[in-house]
Amino acid sequence: MRMYDVIEKKRDGKELEYEEISFFIKNYCEEKIPDYQVSALLMAIFLNGMSERETAELTEIMANSGDVIDLSVIDGIKVDKHSTGGVGDKTTLILGPIVAACGIPVAKMSGRGLGHTGGTIDKLESIPGFKTALTKQEFIDQVMKIGISIAGQTGNLAPADKKLYALRDVTATVNSLPLIASSIMSKKIACGADRIVLDVKTGSGALMKTVEKSVELARTMVKIGNDLGRKTVAVVTDMDIPLGNAIGNSLEVIEAIETLKGNGPKDLEEVSLALAAKMLELAEIGDKENCKNRVREVIDNRKALNKLAELIESQGGNPDVIENYDLFKKAKYVYELTSGQDCYIERVKTDSLGVAAMILGAGRETKESIIDYSAGIKLNKKTGMSIKKGELIATLYTNDSERINAALETLKSSLVLSQSLEPQRPLIISSID
Amino acid sequence: MRMYDVIEKKRDGKELEYEEISFFIKNYCEEKIPDYQVSALLMAIFLNGMSERETAELTEIMANSGDVIDLSVIDGIKVDKHSTGGVGDKTTLILGPIVAACGIPVAKMSGRGLGHTGGTIDKLESIPGFKTALTKQEFIDQVMKIGISIAGQTGNLAPADKKLYALRDVTATVNSLPLIASSIMSKKIACGADRIVLDVKTGSGALMKTVEKSVELARTMVKIGNDLGRKTVAVVTDMDIPLGNAIGNSLEVIEAIETLKGNGPKDLEEVSLALAAKMLELAEIGDKENCKNRVREVIDNRKALNKLAELIESQGGNPDVIENYDLFKKAKYVYELTSGQDCYIERVKTDSLGVAAMILGAGRETKESIIDYSAGIKLNKKTGMSIKKGELIATLYTNDSERINAALETLKSSLVLSQSLEPQRPLIISSID
Repeated sequence: MRMYDVIEKKRDGKELEYEEISFFIKNYCEEKIPDYQVSALLMAIFLNGMSERETAELTEIMANSGDVIDLSVIDGIKVDKHSTGGVGDKTTLILGPIVAACGIPVAKMSGRGLGHTGGTIDKLESIPGFKTALTKQEFIDQVMKIGISIAGQTGNLAPADKKLYALRDVTATVNSLPLIASSIMSKKIACGADRIVLDVKTGSGALMKTVEKSVELARTMVKIGNDLGRKTVAVVTDMDIPLGNAIGNSLEVIEAIETLKGNGPKDLEEVSLALAAKMLELAEIGDKENCKNRVREVIDNRKALNKLAELIESQGGNPDVIENYDLFKKAKYVYELTSGQDCYIERVKTDSLGVAAMILGAGRETKESIIDYSAGIKLNKKTGMSIKKGELIATLYTNDSERINAALETLKSSLVLSQSLEPQRPLIISSID
Repeated sequence: MRMYDVIEKKRDGKELEYEEISFFIKNYCEEKIPDYQVSALLMAIFLNGMSERETAELTEIMANSGDVIDLSVIDGIKVDKHSTGGVGDKTTLILGPIVAACGIPVAKMSGRGLGHTGGTIDKLESIPGFKTALTKQEFIDQVMKIGISIAGQTGNLAPADKKLYALRDVTATVNSLPLIASSIMSKKIACGADRIVLDVKTGSGALMKTVEKSVELARTMVKIGNDLGRKTVAVVTDMDIPLGNAIGNSLEVIEAIETLKGNGPKDLEEVSLALAAKMLELAEIGDKENCKNRVREVIDNRKALNKLAELIESQGGNPDVIENYDLFKKAKYVYELTSGQDCYIERVKTDSLGVAAMILGAGRETKESIIDYSAGIKLNKKTGMSIKKGELIATLYTNDSERINAALETLKSSLVLSQSLEPQRPLIISSID
């Protein structure tokens, strides 16, 4: 078999066979096929697409290209959740403890973030002492002991995806449905979960800007998961508006704690609880209504909050942060943005709002950037709300006073103000089972 | 400017600006842009195409990426000819001396061949003593002295094309109309001619298999040439049948000499004389009828044949070959293929016939292969001819007896025999001025 023929076949819009996909992935990982042939193939895939069969096979082959976590020593159905990412998305910090408090094991490996804020792992590291680098054994032992563990990826998970992604990133071939779907799902499958809930974000702050594209991505990933024997469901949720009010690492942890106390922003609560209920449904602990009630129960009786405390303590963090937010590092500079007029917020350019948070230090501009855990933005007003002249719109936090002006300009430009309001779309837009 | 954005733009089907094409070519030549980004762009060009403007600009930028031959010291209008290549195509050896004999300077740089037979340069080297490696000064001096020079490319002509072609060759992006057209035309323009006649071959032995595609390529190249101030015309000629009867280096030189003596195969004579007349027309020595007559005249009075002798002598070859073909090296093994039945040749798979010649040693399978100048095939029967049982179809020549069987099998499989005949299409299919 020759890589040339594989490229030519996809170039001409034909379907690749399992053997051809496997040949290309295996030999690329072994550096027997050069980058320049793979990037030509990636562009051909970008422009000519891949069938569902091809996409599922690519996923499987990438998932098996390195270590595959074996969670079989843990009793019960292991359910994982994945979000395609958005601004202010801290649902893992909320639904992880909820699901664990309901008795379903949560063995969650998570990544660091690039862009507006850190990933789940970065957010957790804003808790004083919290350790995310666990060995595979520590990771599994903790799930067996307290029912939950959230750690950085250990071992060599889906190295083929890592290599391909790095190449896609510099050849304008990231934004391809089959490549995105197989990239996400290969990592999920290598993480060892039995069943998967996907939160596919849609809108200006998401990877996929339109509902149509988001639903297509969701359907593709659900199909892949089911084809590969991992029961998968997806919800498509709104990311035309930041999720919750806090954007920034420790700010988001605090908001997650508030949500587990029952005092969180309604939108964040709605999405987190819906995802948690989906996970419980997949874990077969009851019907839909039952699962919703269980979620509500562990919040009302503080079992979920206590589970978070247990998680923090078990991973070396100080659980007192839950009752005393002063234990988080504080930003030196705080700036309040108030309104110069009576108006409404018609729309938020959520991606650009994320950039404002990144400028303040909440996210990484490059892989080498260092995150400022206390930096970020707290929104007092969001899409669909009225503002009186002089009223607070947002608070900015940073340790670098020189960044405030640029962040402020970006934040202002992300708000579309008007004198009247359009009706808003629902938060949970679509559900794919 | 970032290469990423250039790739993305073409990926999305947009037109690249002059500055973007120039940026990519210049930086690729200076090795500031990696192969893997260029191959992604090439695949995007392959699948999304290029406008006429983009194609002309790419050509110009590639032509200027290295040395550009300056022919201005030579008086008169310099006309070049280029063929897209086919089996048995030895027209340069015929029309070069004809045009020079008519007083129009022929300063022709030519390439070596890969595939069925050698290029013009390889063919000329089958003449004992003939030297094709001239310095730029020797090359020009000879044109000024005897009116004709045919040499291998000197200097660093269109290095951007060389680099791009090597990458296209391994990434399945060769067969793209704008890339083929700009590659051919960039080299022609760097060779310094004022005007260009293109012979675009069409059919099973050509790069372009269909008339439609060939006409499209011809039109594109004519447009490029004219846009860049080099008056260009094209003819589309048949390559569903080998041109002439000889395939192989010295065999083709002998056939070219025979044609200059007025004894050549009719098809070869027709195409060569038509192209020569086109060149004279472009050189403005008279109207169409006039040019045709001049061509016929220099054949009839042997001036063209004498010009060939002068050319051979001037470049160190033995001009006596013209009257004594025994001076060419002879193949050790000669095999005659005769017919086992009465039939007609309905069609010749010309590409596969070319492969048979290559197997015998007439062409290079890889860049490293060494050509056997005396090897090849002489056809006694071609498409549209009737064959009696026992009649000679073809003669095979080689110095490697082990290759005869494989060549014979390939040759036989390239002949489509039948009991009746279809009418043949004309040799000169289309003319684009």
